[in-house]
Formats: sequence, C-alpha cells, structure tokens
Amino acid sequence: MYMQQLISKLGSEKVSQSETQLFRHSHDESPHISVEPDVVCFPACREDVEAILEIAREYQVPVTAFGAGSGLEGAAIPVKKGISLNFENMDQVLDFSPEDMLITVQPGMTRMQLNKIVNRHGLMFPIDPGADATIGGMVATNASGTTAVRYGSMRDQLLDLEVVLADGTIIHTGTKAKKSSSGYHLTGLFAGSEGTLGIITEITLRLHGIPEHTMMATCTFDTLELCGQAAHCMLQSGIPVMRMELIDAASISEINRYNDYHFPVNHSLFIEFAGSKTAVEEEAILAAEILGDLGAKNWQAASDPAKQREIWKARHELSYAFMHQSGIDEVGADVCVPISKVPNLVAYARKLIDESGLKGGVWGHIGDGNFHTLIVFNPKVKGEREKAEQINDLLALRAIKEGGTCTGEHGVGLGKRKFQEAEHGTSLGIMKNIKQLLDPMGILNPGKIFS
Amino acid sequence: MYMQQLISKLGSEKVSQSETQLFRHSHDESPHISVEPDVVCFPACREDVEAILEIAREYQVPVTAFGAGSGLEGAAIPVKKGISLNFENMDQVLDFSPEDMLITVQPGMTRMQLNKIVNRHGLMFPIDPGADATIGGMVATNASGTTAVRYGSMRDQLLDLEVVLADGTIIHTGTKAKKSSSGYHLTGLFAGSEGTLGIITEITLRLHGIPEHTMMATCTFDTLELCGQAAHCMLQSGIPVMRMELIDAASISEINRYNDYHFPVNHSLFIEFAGSKTAVEEEAILAAEILGDLGAKNWQAASDPAKQREIWKARHELSYAFMHQSGIDEVGADVCVPISKVPNLVAYARKLIDESGLKGGVWGHIGDGNFHTLIVFNPKVKGEREKAEQINDLLALRAIKEGGTCTGEHGVGLGKRKFQEAEHGTSLGIMKNIKQLLDPMGILNPGKIFS
Repeated sequence: MYMQQLISKLGSEKVSQSETQLFRHSHDESPHISVEPDVVCFPACREDVEAILEIAREYQVPVTAFGAGSGLEGAAIPVKKGISLNFENMDQVLDFSPEDMLITVQPGMTRMQLNKIVNRHGLMFPIDPGADATIGGMVATNASGTTAVRYGSMRDQLLDLEVVLADGTIIHTGTKAKKSSSGYHLTGLFAGSEGTLGIITEITLRLHGIPEHTMMATCTFDTLELCGQAAHCMLQSGIPVMRMELIDAASISEINRYNDYHFPVNHSLFIEFAGSKTAVEEEAILAAEILGDLGAKNWQAASDPAKQREIWKARHELSYAFMHQSGIDEVGADVCVPISKVPNLVAYARKLIDESGLKGGVWGHIGDGNFHTLIVFNPKVKGEREKAEQINDLLALRAIKEGGTCTGEHGVGLGKRKFQEAEHGTSLGIMKNIKQLLDPMGILNPGKIFS
Repeated sequence: MYMQQLISKLGSEKVSQSETQLFRHSHDESPHISVEPDVVCFPACREDVEAILEIAREYQVPVTAFGAGSGLEGAAIPVKKGISLNFENMDQVLDFSPEDMLITVQPGMTRMQLNKIVNRHGLMFPIDPGADATIGGMVATNASGTTAVRYGSMRDQLLDLEVVLADGTIIHTGTKAKKSSSGYHLTGLFAGSEGTLGIITEITLRLHGIPEHTMMATCTFDTLELCGQAAHCMLQSGIPVMRMELIDAASISEINRYNDYHFPVNHSLFIEFAGSKTAVEEEAILAAEILGDLGAKNWQAASDPAKQREIWKARHELSYAFMHQSGIDEVGADVCVPISKVPNLVAYARKLIDESGLKGGVWGHIGDGNFHTLIVFNPKVKGEREKAEQINDLLALRAIKEGGTCTGEHGVGLGKRKFQEAEHGTSLGIMKNIKQLLDPMGILNPGKIFS
C-alpha cells in the first residue's frame, strides 16, 4: 500500500524492490546479521526525504538511512525492515566558500569525492575512517579515524546540519559562524545519533589547510606497554602529530605475510608529522630522541611521498590481512580510554586474544586512547564465535570501568547497545526521552542505540 | 516558608538574605536591569544542590546559578527572583590526571585558580574570556575569548559534566575518553544552556601543554576592511596563531589616552605566536611577509615577556578605557560571522557608531569571525540608550543575515532573546521542547534564552 504511495510521490526510478538492492541494503561491513528492507528509496532532494517521511508516518513504516554501507556496528541494517534511504543521488556541493574554509554538502557525498573538490583549493577534509564513507554516515556515527589526534572527530567539524525531523519539521541546527553561544547545541546532538532523531539533508563542514610538508616515521618496541607509554609521552611533549598508530607484533607479522612488506616484526608506532618543512623536521628529530629514550628500535623516517603512501597502505590493509581467507568471520572492539590507561589495556587485550587460542590483532589510534582488536574465527567451529565475542565484551566493560567508552568511533548500532546502561547510567533515560520527544512513533532507525 | 526549609536542610551559614548578598547577586557586568533574588544559597557539595532543588520543586521557586558575576548578558540575574545559587564553596579539584591532560573540578573554581594548579605541571587551561570567570559559568555560557582561534570554545574542552536535573536525577553526560560515538551527545547540550536545563556540579576538562615559546606582533592598517582581510589571509596561510585580535583606530586612541600607551593610532592587529622557538620565529617572519604585502605598517614583534604582557594588558583594558568615566553606561555587540564577511561587517559597525554621534570602539577575536562593539552613552540624555541599542540590533540582525550568530561567546541571557527566532527558526521549537522535557516546572533560570 505505502509502496504505491512512494512510487506515485517519488517516481518509480527512485523506488526499488529489486533483489540486488534489497540485498545491498541488508548489511554493512560488520558481522551483524543481515536484514533486508522492504524497499529502498533514492531521494534526490530534501523534498523527496520529506515525502518519504510523510508516507512513513502515515503507514508507520520504519525508515533507516544508508550511506556507503561501510559501517562497523550495523547502524544501517534495517532490523525492523521498512524503508532503506539511500543518499547516492544526494551527493552534491551546495555551497563552497574556500575563503571561509567551509563547505556545505549533501549527505551522500563521500569523503574522497569531497577531498577531490577541495584539495585543488589547498584545502582538505581530514577525517579519515579508512573506508570511503559518505559524509552523512560519518556525521551519523560521529566517525573519526587516524587524524582525530589532531583534528578531533566528525562532531568537531560541523557548523550546521539541515535535518528533516520525524514530524516533517525542517530545522537548521547551527549557522556558518565558527563559534556561537546562542541557544542549545543541537548540532552536537544530531551528530552521532545514527539516524534515530532525524534525517540529515545538508551538512556544513569546516575545512583545513593542506600542510606544506609531511614526514612518516616508524619504530618498534619490545612490549605493548612500552608502545603505549611512548605514545603517551609523544602527546605530552606537545608535538602536534598528524597521526599516531599503534600496531601490535602479531598484526605486523600478518601484514608482512599478506603483501610482502618487510616491517620489523615487533610492537610498532607509525607516526605522521605535518606542517612547515622546518617544523616537521624539528618535530621528527625531537620525537626520535623522546622515543629512543623509551627504548624505541628500528627508527625509520621517510620524507619520500611514495614510501609514506606505502606505509599507510599497509596500515589500511590490516583488517584485510586478517580476513582474506574465505569462510572466516571476525569481531572487533573499538574502545577508547584516557591515554594513561592504554598501556595496560592493550596488554590486557593481547593477553585475552592469546589465551583464547584465536588469531587476532590489536591496533588503533593510540593518540586518542582509541584502539581496536580484530579477532577472526571459524563460525562453523562450535564455541569460537562466543569466545571472540566474550573478549569484546570484556574489553568494552574494562574500558568503561577505566573511565572510557565502549565505542570511540564506530557507533552503537546493534553491537554496543548492551553496554549503554553500563556506560551512561542515568543519562540513558534522558537520551531515551529525547528520542521519544523527537520520534514519538519510533519510525527512525528503530532497534538502534537502545535495546 | 521554603526559607526555613533551606536553613534546616543546609544550615544557616549556607543561606543568606543579607542586603549585601542580595545586591551582589542581583546583577552581572552587563547593563541589564538588576533584580535581587529572595535568597542566596552557598552549596558546598552536590548533596546541597540536590537538597536545594528538592525544596525549589516543592515550593516552585526559581533557581538561578551564579558564578563570578562576570557575565555580559544577564544570564545570572534572577529575573523571577527566588534562589540564587552561588558556587564559591564548590571550587575544588576532584581529580587531576596530568598524564592524561585532564582535570575534574567543581563549578566554582575560577580559570585563574585552575591555571595556578595546572601550570606547575607544564599544562594550561587556555580559554580566556578576559574576566576571571568561574569554570561553571564559562561552561554555562560556552565562553571563549582570545584563544578560541586555536583551542575552540568551552564546549570543545569538555569531556564530562555531572549535572543535577530539575527532577533530582544526577547524570554524567560523558566519560573521560577523548572521543566517543556512544549515545547522544548530552555534554554539548548542557554546555551553553545557561543553567536552564540542569545545575552543573562537576566538570571534566581537557588541558593543553604550555607552549615552549611565545612571540607577540602588532601592526596597523589604513582601513578596517584591510585589517579584516589581513586576518583572513593569516588564517588561510595555515599559521596556527595563538591569538589574533583586531582593534579599531578609535579604540587604540582611547587606550593610549587611558594608560599612557603609545600604540600607533590606526586599525590594528595584535597577534600572538606560540610553539617551539624555531616554529614561532619562522611563523612571525612568514606573517610579517604576508601582512606586509597587504599593506601592514608599524610591524613590531616582541619576544620579551614584559613587553608581551604590556600589550595584552592594554588589550584587556579596552573596555575600561571607554567606561572609566562615572555616570556613563554601555552596550556591546558580540556577533560572529564567517571570516570573509568580517571586513564588511566591521566597517558597517564603525559606520553605524560614527553616524550615531556616540563614542564607541570595535574590536574582537577576528580569527574566529567574532567581534564586539562597545558603545558608551549617557543614560540621562534622552534617546542615547535607544541609539546605542539600535546599533546593537542592526549588527545582530546583519550577522544573522550573513550566516552568522547574534552571540559568539557572551550567551543569550536577556539581551539576545529577541534574536533567537531570527537565528534559529524552527529549531527554536525543538529547543523549547527540550527545555520543557528537562524542566517541566520551569524552575531553572526562568526568563533566559527564551522570551
């Protein structure tokens, strides 16, 4: 019934029930169980989104926004079926002001498309979650990644969002001013809300200047604790690193095997410096001294762009290195804790993996205190999935106990719902009330964030 | 009746109805009309705040939080009378982790007290609104100031708030992790809410390393437009300035007269560079080149700490320079716009002041696109107040029209309520709903933000 309504309002080319589209919108890159939507809509403008929400209200149909499908916690899986909203036809620049270092885009634009447009003006959008995610998806999950240590997360890049609310109201959450003390900060509220409070149709982002010069350095440590401590000292030194990644020995070994790299096999830091040539060179020398005092070995610095690209390519291939055999599945943690807790926590993660007898790696954005585990298992071997998931649970609960969070950048989606009460306590009730206030019928991405 | 309750629950030493206290809590530093509270309470702990709110609920008495009284929009004036909550007995450090560059404090601690504690660890809390405001007040208004161009505003420094809600629920809005994608971002919502959504009892803040070296530079331009354009080019150059202040010729002239300074009388930029010695020196040379090309004159750079302090002292004395005659009153704008709009807008501000025949200055945190006007008038001369206020109104509306905000850092309080609809449109309704959700009886700072 509502299917006819969708077709008559949007036109049949924007509505699909093809097997291919239903399958494509049934999953993301997480191991969460796939659920197909009843229909996929491809809005081309805000008015289309309004029309879809109007129909969804009338027929009480769930609406789940879908970006690039690169999510890692199932936020885009339409667990209650209904409409999947795909933004690939809303991928345009609406306003670009290089002189203000601001751009307004539609949610379906991907971060690589965005960078292609702004790079030629000497500007960049630095948030890099690895995948070529859509900007809308990145806002919805408050994504971050390797550069958060310098630029913060998605929420920190936002000046304004246009949002269509469940009741059809269109709001702007901010302005184009860099800062404001006017009214309640709704921008921050919608960022990270995973499409449960409204559908984002416009995003105004801060851009940043492309640094004149970059340099990469890699080094190794004999223990994970030392590696964590070294990262910690780097931050305290005030050196404004662009990226600082920890990769444990098991992962280095896996990546060497995967693509014939020759990284020295030990717990490693990959560090990027960026700025003026003089500053970068000075920072690299200072870093080598600080880390040398802490026991760093195999210090290698690279100014050559090709060498730098190779190092980052290896870093980005980490997950694939573990997962490229067919028939295996994986689970991954995404904890974030105060930096002083990192050394113990990464060592704890490594111990849990080793004790489980499963294969897995530990790596992450150590400068933020955010790290991941990736544990692969054979879903056909009884007990392996449970063992892998138990490690995840132990890590999330330990992170919360240490004053941290169960998810630093992937979002709650389906997998982190069970930790919401432990992490948020009484404020979870306030979050539920806000959800109830903005989506009383519960049509926006039901089943996510809250159990 | 509730007065007896307050005394019996808190003890008489925490409850005052003395003339002195009632007067002290009747106003802030703004020209808004004073209103005395019925009583001033001095909670010493969260439990005291809970007890006060319980009584306020029972007797439906307004509760207005009061920090240092340094606000500029009347946010702390108890316009509906009732209880003024003074936090001077809640000024302690609750947890300090220098290695995590984090500190948890009570809301009554002032920023100078805070810096005294953290400076000895090589750390600083950089947000500097001028006055020695309380951290609680700075959170409540999302304050910022001269260093926002580098560090952002208060909201950007917050990891967690403990808040007592109107119904007595105690929540924590975040964790001690540097970033999180878990749940809705309540921290951002309470920051800048001016005590209308809950009473903040604990604040966990990011700290920053003290830069190794600083350098100040001053220069002048022949027109305000050139000055604005120069600031704009500095930002685009990617030089990470610590502070960048614009001060118009009329203000320079006033400050020279006020305290026997000898700044060249023209539209000026005051710039601070901070970082490693090499980086700072390189940046200052680059800045001199860029600004020289744009017509900067009288370039002076100072590495000497005493000279640097003198320049900032002069900057901080600006308001007093205009206001030190008795019998005069003043109004001030606090607009913030995209940086490309600044040159026209500061010129417009200057023109309005000149045409009015009143005395006034234009200055501000030009790197954020945030600037102030200060217009002095004689309240006994008919029409002067109206003229001054009209300039304010025209500037606020023009800023909103240019995609900016009516208040970059002072808050809404009483003075900016009239612009809320123009600035926020339909999202103002959502803000009102959130207020209604969290404070259905309207006991928390009634009369603020919303008209």
